[in-house]
Amino acid sequence: MNSQKPGRRQFLKSGAALAGLAAGASVTEKSLSADAPEERIDALHKHGERSHFVDSIRRGSINNPERRLPDEPHNFGLATPLQDSAGMITPASLHYIVSHGYEPPDIDPREHRLLIHGMVDHPMVLSLEDLQRLPSVSRFHFIECHGNSTTGGPGGAARLSPDATVQDTHGFTSCSQWTGVMLSVLLKEAGVQKGASWIIAEGADANKHSKSIPIEKALDDALIAYAQNGEPVRPEQGYPLRLVTPGWQGINNVKWLRRVELVDEPYMAMMEVSRYPRLMPDGKSRWFEFEMGPKSVITRPSGGQHLPTAGFYEITGLAWSGGGAIRRVEVSTDGGTTWKDAQLQGPIASKAHTRFTIPWNWDGGDAMLQSRCTDEKGVVQPTLAEVAKIWGTDINYFRQTTLITSDLNAIQPWKVTRDGSVKNAIY
Amino acid sequence: MNSQKPGRRQFLKSGAALAGLAAGASVTEKSLSADAPEERIDALHKHGERSHFVDSIRRGSINNPERRLPDEPHNFGLATPLQDSAGMITPASLHYIVSHGYEPPDIDPREHRLLIHGMVDHPMVLSLEDLQRLPSVSRFHFIECHGNSTTGGPGGAARLSPDATVQDTHGFTSCSQWTGVMLSVLLKEAGVQKGASWIIAEGADANKHSKSIPIEKALDDALIAYAQNGEPVRPEQGYPLRLVTPGWQGINNVKWLRRVELVDEPYMAMMEVSRYPRLMPDGKSRWFEFEMGPKSVITRPSGGQHLPTAGFYEITGLAWSGGGAIRRVEVSTDGGTTWKDAQLQGPIASKAHTRFTIPWNWDGGDAMLQSRCTDEKGVVQPTLAEVAKIWGTDINYFRQTTLITSDLNAIQPWKVTRDGSVKNAIY
Repeated sequence: MNSQKPGRRQFLKSGAALAGLAAGASVTEKSLSADAPEERIDALHKHGERSHFVDSIRRGSINNPERRLPDEPHNFGLATPLQDSAGMITPASLHYIVSHGYEPPDIDPREHRLLIHGMVDHPMVLSLEDLQRLPSVSRFHFIECHGNSTTGGPGGAARLSPDATVQDTHGFTSCSQWTGVMLSVLLKEAGVQKGASWIIAEGADANKHSKSIPIEKALDDALIAYAQNGEPVRPEQGYPLRLVTPGWQGINNVKWLRRVELVDEPYMAMMEVSRYPRLMPDGKSRWFEFEMGPKSVITRPSGGQHLPTAGFYEITGLAWSGGGAIRRVEVSTDGGTTWKDAQLQGPIASKAHTRFTIPWNWDGGDAMLQSRCTDEKGVVQPTLAEVAKIWGTDINYFRQTTLITSDLNAIQPWKVTRDGSVKNAIY
Repeated sequence: MNSQKPGRRQFLKSGAALAGLAAGASVTEKSLSADAPEERIDALHKHGERSHFVDSIRRGSINNPERRLPDEPHNFGLATPLQDSAGMITPASLHYIVSHGYEPPDIDPREHRLLIHGMVDHPMVLSLEDLQRLPSVSRFHFIECHGNSTTGGPGGAARLSPDATVQDTHGFTSCSQWTGVMLSVLLKEAGVQKGASWIIAEGADANKHSKSIPIEKALDDALIAYAQNGEPVRPEQGYPLRLVTPGWQGINNVKWLRRVELVDEPYMAMMEVSRYPRLMPDGKSRWFEFEMGPKSVITRPSGGQHLPTAGFYEITGLAWSGGGAIRRVEVSTDGGTTWKDAQLQGPIASKAHTRFTIPWNWDGGDAMLQSRCTDEKGVVQPTLAEVAKIWGTDINYFRQTTLITSDLNAIQPWKVTRDGSVKNAIY
């Protein structure tokens, strides 16, 4: 490259930069409405849609019926296309879904009620309108299935394929700005009785999904959300009400919330006694775990993507932790020998996706890209070997292909080869 | 109300709280998919939609053909339903649109190019793929039409009706997280020549909308955005590329950006010499104004809404300023006699919508609700009388019904009457 001015960064080769200059910029395009019927234009004016050239979609076990359990024929998961993500927000249309039941219930918000009862002085029944009169908060929080990034995650066994994308490996996490009422406000109103130590949160889905949650969390930062990214919570995310338990395993974030009962012991609901306890190497299992550990993943370049030429690339990805705010993300391009601090895009919110970026000049040779994050508690994302020490010798636990999952948060390596292809390096 | 515990807030009357308790919480609802064909479910799995019970839509001059100018038959504006807003994000589907041209062009991103030329050492042609390799930023910014909250705004003459909603009065502002490349990065790469003092930004729409922008802004915080709220910029917002000029009048945020030319004087493009200069009381006009002043508005309760009973309500709204971050919002419920500080929901981003909230016990009598904000420069949102002093005696300027607009940022009063109705009090 011939630099004519000192200080010029020259991200782009001159040749690449000038390619197509003679042909000029794009010509004026045909209007979207040119052939559209008037009703279609009217509908788009009222409520817009994305370009038909944008083809990002959720994928997951819904496309892999063989991954469904025989006793849960309706079970399915659909993962967010993180390879196409930008910034910190997941579009509501692409928020991941894990369902142990059926399709979302079709709830009329005028009919829906939230019951707060059990060990309280004043049981309450609240409509959506009641809730919207109360003091509100808006907070950015990720929600993540604790099977994410394991073989119990979006890709199933494909998590261990070199062809796995970041949607396959990590697509069961999404981040929204949630607006609603702090559960603590309602519990204060209801008057919690002495001895109440757990809440049972129940959804209005056909399965009546129920989850036991310690009262400390309910009185801390749990939120009854009626809005997501500035609009009503989507049906797949719990319309009209979702319990958001910031930083805790996805299953605690009860959708279609209709009942909060205060009790003095956990409910031992189906999911919390069957699918979700974690088997340890010694044969014992861990129950009632909640907080997701610090995790990060490079979303670009990531598995299945292709680098057309050597030269400048921005490496970018997401980091998050149930422990609070992300304080640091480091990136290695040489398989973990050296690490450099990435830049974090603000605002950095607690228990939310944080976008990181770092410049990289690809020399055209083999490279191994990895990221690791540190949260505000100082906890550092572990290597796969470190995870294996806790959860079993070698990485057998990680390789297991049943749906008994774990919140494994190991560093994800992507291998870049000389032909520009990017491959999953955990296999 | 019978408070059994000191400290209990009792937002809700006991009667209201217990209404319906005997009937219990909502029963399990029919699944959304019960009658849906398989292809429909498959489409929703790939890319979700909002509940069919949610009916928030954009509205504006598209519904009022009489507001269109004879020489601009394709001119239209569609306003964001701020009365339904939550948090700081505007859903992309509901982002306001002001169009001086036609429907959005249907641009194939693989064909689209951005040309940077004129007074630069190295003219460049960039594809979307090129741009996505470069260092990126993600920033929350509002975009606002400078006719917003005047009779040149979304409601037209209806802005002065007691029945005006906040969508009619203020719906030409929206806020997104924009992701893209700083224009300064590209200009540094291109090498700006001595004497270049303006850029001309041109869109790929049928009108080739062009806007002259001082180079100081181009080198400051102007952004070439390819993503909005975590997904590609929507067609109505400029897919695949939009120039975002934070805090500046909407017209500078050129959609479908295809060309940036560096020049030594403004272009005197059609819009900047015809519609957008502002007529002063002395008959002279002000050209090339850019920055939007500090503005706030209460979105709930707001015009057209109804308060069912006396008692507790949260008052909530949005504040924003082209001058930077919002530092303070005060709310009055007594027509401006007394003011109280509202709470600001974080994160508070520069040149972005900031959500404010404040508790209010409505005694069931007449009330006048107003908000006023102060930005980081210490500039305070003016009263209508203060605005009138600058722009003309009385509020004649404000009442004018032509499309020659102004960035009037007067305090918006909403009148609550004993029957619970909420009315626009500027008329």
